[in-house]
Amino acid sequence: MNIPERILMGPGPSTVPARILRAMSSPTLGHLDPRYIEIMDSVCIKLRKVYETENALTFPVSATGMAGMECVVTNLMEPGDEAIVCVNGVFGGRMVDVMERAGVTVHRLDVPWGEIFPLEMLGEAIQRYPKAKALGIVHAETSTGAHQPLEGLGNLLHDAGMLLIVDAVTSLGGHPLKVDEWGIDAIYSGTQKCLSCPPGLSPVSFSPRAVEITESRKTKVQSWYFDISMLKDYYKGSGKRAYHHTAPVNMIYALHEALTIVLEEGLEARHARHARLHRRLRAGLESMGIQYVPEHSLHTLNCIHIPEGADDAAVRAKLLDDYSIEIGAGLGPFAGKAWRIGLMGHSATQANVDLVLAALVDCLE
Amino acid sequence: MNIPERILMGPGPSTVPARILRAMSSPTLGHLDPRYIEIMDSVCIKLRKVYETENALTFPVSATGMAGMECVVTNLMEPGDEAIVCVNGVFGGRMVDVMERAGVTVHRLDVPWGEIFPLEMLGEAIQRYPKAKALGIVHAETSTGAHQPLEGLGNLLHDAGMLLIVDAVTSLGGHPLKVDEWGIDAIYSGTQKCLSCPPGLSPVSFSPRAVEITESRKTKVQSWYFDISMLKDYYKGSGKRAYHHTAPVNMIYALHEALTIVLEEGLEARHARHARLHRRLRAGLESMGIQYVPEHSLHTLNCIHIPEGADDAAVRAKLLDDYSIEIGAGLGPFAGKAWRIGLMGHSATQANVDLVLAALVDCLE
Repeated sequence: MNIPERILMGPGPSTVPARILRAMSSPTLGHLDPRYIEIMDSVCIKLRKVYETENALTFPVSATGMAGMECVVTNLMEPGDEAIVCVNGVFGGRMVDVMERAGVTVHRLDVPWGEIFPLEMLGEAIQRYPKAKALGIVHAETSTGAHQPLEGLGNLLHDAGMLLIVDAVTSLGGHPLKVDEWGIDAIYSGTQKCLSCPPGLSPVSFSPRAVEITESRKTKVQSWYFDISMLKDYYKGSGKRAYHHTAPVNMIYALHEALTIVLEEGLEARHARHARLHRRLRAGLESMGIQYVPEHSLHTLNCIHIPEGADDAAVRAKLLDDYSIEIGAGLGPFAGKAWRIGLMGHSATQANVDLVLAALVDCLE
Repeated sequence: MNIPERILMGPGPSTVPARILRAMSSPTLGHLDPRYIEIMDSVCIKLRKVYETENALTFPVSATGMAGMECVVTNLMEPGDEAIVCVNGVFGGRMVDVMERAGVTVHRLDVPWGEIFPLEMLGEAIQRYPKAKALGIVHAETSTGAHQPLEGLGNLLHDAGMLLIVDAVTSLGGHPLKVDEWGIDAIYSGTQKCLSCPPGLSPVSFSPRAVEITESRKTKVQSWYFDISMLKDYYKGSGKRAYHHTAPVNMIYALHEALTIVLEEGLEARHARHARLHRRLRAGLESMGIQYVPEHSLHTLNCIHIPEGADDAAVRAKLLDDYSIEIGAGLGPFAGKAWRIGLMGHSATQANVDLVLAALVDCLE
């Protein structure tokens, strides 16, 4: 196939360890084979640990990260429902779009790209839109690198009878994410970011409260493929294991190995590693006079202003050609103005931090 | 991971060749990496050859086969549209469900499970429902093994100003499938059947006529993930290559290798192989007194009546335990009454045919 070996330091995918690639290339089993079911059940158990949740309905949607968003939104919301959606980057905007396609009336909260939402502002919105069924917010905004604190928000929402929906595509496996403790009702992520698994699955989790709400829907979920009323019989396996769709068997092997690696390292150690390497990268960049875009930066994604005079595309091309390092371009209003350097999972090593700093010095000369 | 090596002779997945597993485990590239884009473009070119089409919009949907159905239906149909859907098994029924979830008024045609639709019956339905926008039909009904002829149907529909939607999940790569010659406007398949690639992608193709209709929609496609108005900018790559979602990179490597293998063998030779091995299996089964369910059987899936006195689950368990052979159970009204023996792609070998016959003789004793 002639595939070059890249050092993936963009917004995802991150570099996939050989162990995961090997696991993925194990022989394909039937999706109802007893051994496959064991592996799938084990994936769900490990996912609960990584999400720090006891939610029975925790499983990988058979498609990439954005399918997780669609699965969560189309199951929880019905046409005519109202929702509050927080927009400070591409993925908050995406959630507005997905909500509207599901017939939801969206009350959109905006702060400038790169900023985060203060808890008071969210509390005010909850007061202002008492008929909202849910509030959707992005924990780790991949387009800006902003890290949204979530502590306390679940309680505010539950007191008002609302649900908390969280986009954790770029934080799961890199930042603490306490689904139960923080009162998150529905959450989705991707495999190709801090889990360092190839892209292709979207781990989701639904609280019992969220599942109950889906069970009293008046309308069918508009998507057959993402309908948890059927998927839960396949993944929860309570009683008869009902066939739904053909699961992406080898991707499940890969995710199993990726989660095993995460749990071997331990969540606390893993989060600490991401924090430490972020600080190392940040110190290096700032010593070169490079500034971060967000005040509250993720550890896993470092969104920086392109230094004055630097040629965006030329520098990224030189990084790729001379160092085989991929970093990310800016999105939306940050196109041509920002770079995004990922430190996710297997890509988050001291060697990579020091290399990307050295390579940037060279490419910016 | 401790994965047993199965001989996959059920309704899919089929056995995946080592070449494909190796290609799949190549290092993960970024989904915007120039080399990845080359591979993805090459996949689309090869898919056009296998579908025998010049359709520009031919690409793999980033999810398993049923997502292809959802992609086709939600893009072509709008709420309030009418459609004719032909039901002779699980997957026709599934299309009714997916259509209704998209707000479509469905005129359902039924023949008994295992039978096919005569062209005259379809022609009468086209006359009876002149406001229908499309007719949906299953080329290869995985639940019954029935093989639906499609020649002539496209012309009837186009004369009436309607579109032809085809489910080819179990035929692509095993049976002739002439998308352009047969006037198919939208078609979807899976990778894990006659292409012998792991499950995880759904190859689709849209005719220029179908694309035009999607371009004059009054409403947004209800699914963001499957919306071809955005996907076509990623896959067709006319002008600027727009980012949509993170593609399942390693699955695309696998599909690239799978399609390479199909084209190395040649479509004609491949279809002839499936036909020959079906005849060999059929002769062997019938000499054991076992009867086929459908009169018009697929080559790729052999749906047979369980011999009287045989214990369905016990025989399948013995095949799996003693021979590591997976065959499929019956679905719906055929549960406990039929078995489904797949002869798909890499699983369709003379050795496998003779082995499964010998194993059945043993397990039925």
